[in-house]
Amino acid sequence: MAERIAGPEIERLIQLLARLPGLGPRSARRAALHLLRKREELLGPLADAMQVAREKIVVCSACGNIDSCDPCTLCRDERRNPKLLVVVETVADLWALERAKAVSARYHVLGGTLSPLDGIGPKDLNLVNLPERVASGQIEEVILAVNATVDGQTTAHYITELLNHLPVRITRLAHGVPVGGELDYLDEGTLAAAMRSRTDF
Amino acid sequence: MAERIAGPEIERLIQLLARLPGLGPRSARRAALHLLRKREELLGPLADAMQVAREKIVVCSACGNIDSCDPCTLCRDERRNPKLLVVVETVADLWALERAKAVSARYHVLGGTLSPLDGIGPKDLNLVNLPERVASGQIEEVILAVNATVDGQTTAHYITELLNHLPVRITRLAHGVPVGGELDYLDEGTLAAAMRSRTDF
Repeated sequence: MAERIAGPEIERLIQLLARLPGLGPRSARRAALHLLRKREELLGPLADAMQVAREKIVVCSACGNIDSCDPCTLCRDERRNPKLLVVVETVADLWALERAKAVSARYHVLGGTLSPLDGIGPKDLNLVNLPERVASGQIEEVILAVNATVDGQTTAHYITELLNHLPVRITRLAHGVPVGGELDYLDEGTLAAAMRSRTDF
Repeated sequence: MAERIAGPEIERLIQLLARLPGLGPRSARRAALHLLRKREELLGPLADAMQVAREKIVVCSACGNIDSCDPCTLCRDERRNPKLLVVVETVADLWALERAKAVSARYHVLGGTLSPLDGIGPKDLNLVNLPERVASGQIEEVILAVNATVDGQTTAHYITELLNHLPVRITRLAHGVPVGGELDYLDEGTLAAAMRSRTDF
């Protein structure tokens, strides 16, 4: 953007908006103009909501989820099955499972995956207190809901060893054909896994 | 999004982010998580920048541009040619022309186009003071830099009649082949216009 078109305040707003995932320089300009047109309905409320989030949102010390209270709403929810613990990589994955109403359980958010190439080791993740958490509670099954990527699977193996000495069942999500998916578009690994894990019809 | 996953503060942030152009529900969730991860580097500064924009940014009473001062930086800029006035539909169009360094002139931002079907008439646009502005200044040429759409051209014709009685030259942007464009992908109207307006090589 050329210098001094619209004053430093708007420039700064555009630059910061452009750092959001999904927005580039052009869409950040569009977003800034949209915000300035909808000052009372959108710009003001969004500024306030960000301020509230900045001040109130904390990381749950029990599970690593983010919420305005610690322990988080999910950890406090007495209706959830206390025997199940779902290990996820990120809060986004936790939200995805919750949207799918996939399971009634508590979570453990790692905050990433082990990645030796990127220099991410066990201490960089929310892993240290996992054995203690599993040992101290009523947990009977740990479900490894990590991504089916190399790093995700590496992390899953590491956790399996970490919990080896504890009397819990360790499971992982099933591999298979996505619901609504077409075989022709699936990779060989998924097809082979789906064939291996075939079930009675 | 299912109820009570992550507390009302995060839900509200996501809902407001989803109202930005270019962000849907899914990318708004990603943006919210990104903001909460980068609390000090991004969430805080962006909340502040929005607050500043909300309080400081005003519409220029002379041209309809937005800036933190009134008259705006462009209207105050003495180095611009006072004989040229460029009429644009939106601030986004003004920014596009400024980025292209297309002209050294003052602007007049309409805030939209005439659109009888949508009930947008002359009074809904920044049109009323245009004849007065053109008559009172040193303006010798009014450049209609409106979009080459039906509504844009309707608006251009309306402005031409509005300024009919004033001793100014009224021009419009040239039609033609976009720089870098391929003839094979251009519509017939553009090709015919480019042929009619051909220039010596």
